[in-house]
Amino acid sequence: QCNLTAWWENDLGSRMLVSTVDSQGNFSGEYHTAVSSAQKPIEPSPLIGSQHLDEDGQCTFGFTVNWKKFSDSTAVFVGQCFAGDDGEEVLQTSWLLREKVDSLSSDWKATR
Amino acid sequence: QCNLTAWWENDLGSRMLVSTVDSQGNFSGEYHTAVSSAQKPIEPSPLIGSQHLDEDGQCTFGFTVNWKKFSDSTAVFVGQCFAGDDGEEVLQTSWLLREKVDSLSSDWKATR
Amino acid sequence: QCNLTAWWENDLGSRMLVSTVDSQGNFSGEYHTAVSSAQKPIEPSPLIGSQHLDEDGQCTFGFTVNWKKFSDSTAVFVGQCFAGDDGEEVLQTSWLLREKVDSLSSDWKATR
Amino acid sequence: QCNLTAWWENDLGSRMLVSTVDSQGNFSGEYHTAVSSAQKPIEPSPLIGSQHLDEDGQCTFGFTVNWKKFSDSTAVFVGQCFAGDDGEEVLQTSWLLREKVDSLSSDWKATR
Repeated sequence: QCNLTAWWENDLGSRMLVSTVDSQGNFSGEYHTAVSSAQKPIEPSPLIGSQHLDEDGQCTFGFTVNWKKFSDSTAVFVGQCFAGDDGEEVLQTSWLLREKVDSLSSDWKATR
Repeated sequence: QCNLTAWWENDLGSRMLVSTVDSQGNFSGEYHTAVSSAQKPIEPSPLIGSQHLDEDGQCTFGFTVNWKKFSDSTAVFVGQCFAGDDGEEVLQTSWLLREKVDSLSSDWKATR
Repeated sequence: QCNLTAWWENDLGSRMLVSTVDSQGNFSGEYHTAVSSAQKPIEPSPLIGSQHLDEDGQCTFGFTVNWKKFSDSTAVFVGQCFAGDDGEEVLQTSWLLREKVDSLSSDWKATR
Repeated sequence: QCNLTAWWENDLGSRMLVSTVDSQGNFSGEYHTAVSSAQKPIEPSPLIGSQHLDEDGQCTFGFTVNWKKFSDSTAVFVGQCFAGDDGEEVLQTSWLLREKVDSLSSDWKATR
């Protein structure tokens, strides 16, 4: 079964801890990013999200990381759990990073 | 100040209710999508997310919608609050929708 | 029928001229962007792309804008032609902007 | 120096040939995709695009692939050239795939 409660690490060296998943699939945790475009030093940041509770171990999920400790930005990740070649679980995710901009006229460049 | 607690409606006619925002900026609510690529009929779906608590009314935020009531998919939204021309608050968002796929080899097409 | 040869303007005030479409669907033209994240002043920039030649007037298309006259960046646009409510043709597009980064380790933030 | 003229292969096993790059940076070639969401069998598809001609070997570039031989879709790719650890050139790209949809009301789901 797919349960996200664990430490996960991605290719960039960022790590995240999903602490507990409740009966609705909601979870919280902490994201330790290895990369940043902010001025201030990186700090572990809270994450909150939701997963499906399918029994086939291939659930989709999504979460939000609030970088408030060192940045005005917010990131969202969405993905799916897979069993890798060696039986270990692998998460495939895509993300969007929203940077704060001054006005609506700069909105076009706020998301990467 | 930027507080997401409200009903919001987008250009496609989708509506969402953000019920309460806690002191950390976390919130939950319900998303009533007007569009779907799923087979089953649309149902209101739970959302969970996080916002910055900046006092300038232009906070960034993100949230996850778990479509489990009628689909295997998960969506994430990220955006920023702005004051529109008429003083009303406007949310600018971008989104990613993750559909469940059978195997890693189909991962390339799972996100739109 | 869908033929892109024309001046087009988007919501941000950017304008583009598609000069000619050849029998394969290839076209070239000039993009006059209204917005930029570059330091140097904006200049009209060459575009090159390709469209389908469907007879239903709803072709998909894509093109590349090379911002070399004032930036190291490159943008790509992909979209579809539609007849609007009033019978006028409307282009719906999405884009990606690639900024040049120093090294592979910055690749994660290069595209918006 | 960065010159795209070559055969390139990506992680999914898709291959592309960039045949020639002209003095403006424009190029054409052929894309042999390994993956498809279309009904018809895959065929090699024409590509057309543009690259910067920077002398540092780290140019950005973009190109359009017209899948007309077996699909109504169009894809765009944007990326940058890097020297890999072993001195070989590596392309980092992002892409958008536009599928043809019947009407403006389906536009929200047309791009992945």
